[in-house]
Amino acid sequence: MNLKDYIANIEDFPIDGVTFRDITPLMADGDAFVEATNQMIDFANQVGADLIVGPESRGFIFGCPVAYAKNIGFIPVRKPGKLPRATASYKYDLEYGQNELHIHKDAIKPNQKVLVVDDLLATGGTIEATINLVHQLGGEVVGCCFLIELTELKGREKIKNIPIFTAITY
Amino acid sequence: MNLKDYIANIEDFPIDGVTFRDITPLMADGDAFVEATNQMIDFANQVGADLIVGPESRGFIFGCPVAYAKNIGFIPVRKPGKLPRATASYKYDLEYGQNELHIHKDAIKPNQKVLVVDDLLATGGTIEATINLVHQLGGEVVGCCFLIELTELKGREKIKNIPIFTAITY
Repeated sequence: MNLKDYIANIEDFPIDGVTFRDITPLMADGDAFVEATNQMIDFANQVGADLIVGPESRGFIFGCPVAYAKNIGFIPVRKPGKLPRATASYKYDLEYGQNELHIHKDAIKPNQKVLVVDDLLATGGTIEATINLVHQLGGEVVGCCFLIELTELKGREKIKNIPIFTAITY
Repeated sequence: MNLKDYIANIEDFPIDGVTFRDITPLMADGDAFVEATNQMIDFANQVGADLIVGPESRGFIFGCPVAYAKNIGFIPVRKPGKLPRATASYKYDLEYGQNELHIHKDAIKPNQKVLVVDDLLATGGTIEATINLVHQLGGEVVGCCFLIELTELKGREKIKNIPIFTAITY
């Protein structure tokens, strides 16, 4: 199975000149969704993850099935105002403006081995923030995995000394 | 295992007088996350679902593992501007203002048997919108399942003649 066959390429979305890689056809196909998730589970096993962390909302799409299949916890990283208990936070710059992500302060025990899961590695801002949040809580990021990597955006350079798995690259 | 033991009760969040039922401790515990998801999978099997639909973002948390475990597709229902291809949409009233949800028009084949999954049944606005979107595309909603039902908000009254499963009720 070539997972790339299940990605729709949408020109000029969300803005002119950008080709959006739409993962919804892959999610809609049970076999493709299972194959992609199983590749991430294999990686999670290789790196010895005992906790999954994923940024809202598309980090939930693969992160939650990986946690379920491995019978380990899933920790959401969310936008401000969504998590009801004490949080750690991290602000980062976007092309226009800033973004801020939060994690519950008690979500990770020191030295827990965390796999970060998201759908897309682009410029790497979200993943850099998520890694920072895990480190703030004393967790160890043992790997980062993504369905898709857009290599020309060089997000990989923001993930230093951490194993990376991507199922599909452009 | 009593799943309610894994829900944190947060007083006065997001506004005064509301008790927020925080599901993140359940998600963080592998055994509790698996048990809750397995209960939904059992229900999905009972009602004969062949497709899972879940509203962003917390519908992804259980909906995606259920789809994965059953080797069937998952269709996201999302806020405006997130889905890149042609969508069907539905507007509904909130206490203050309106909300609008979208689904890709080609996401469901006529007569597909859809299970709608979300974390919480409260007033039922989101689930009513999601059911409407499935019906617009010709799908049959064979069941709705939730981790938590807040019975006093009577969301169940918005789900007519459709089997409902809730793992935890308040």
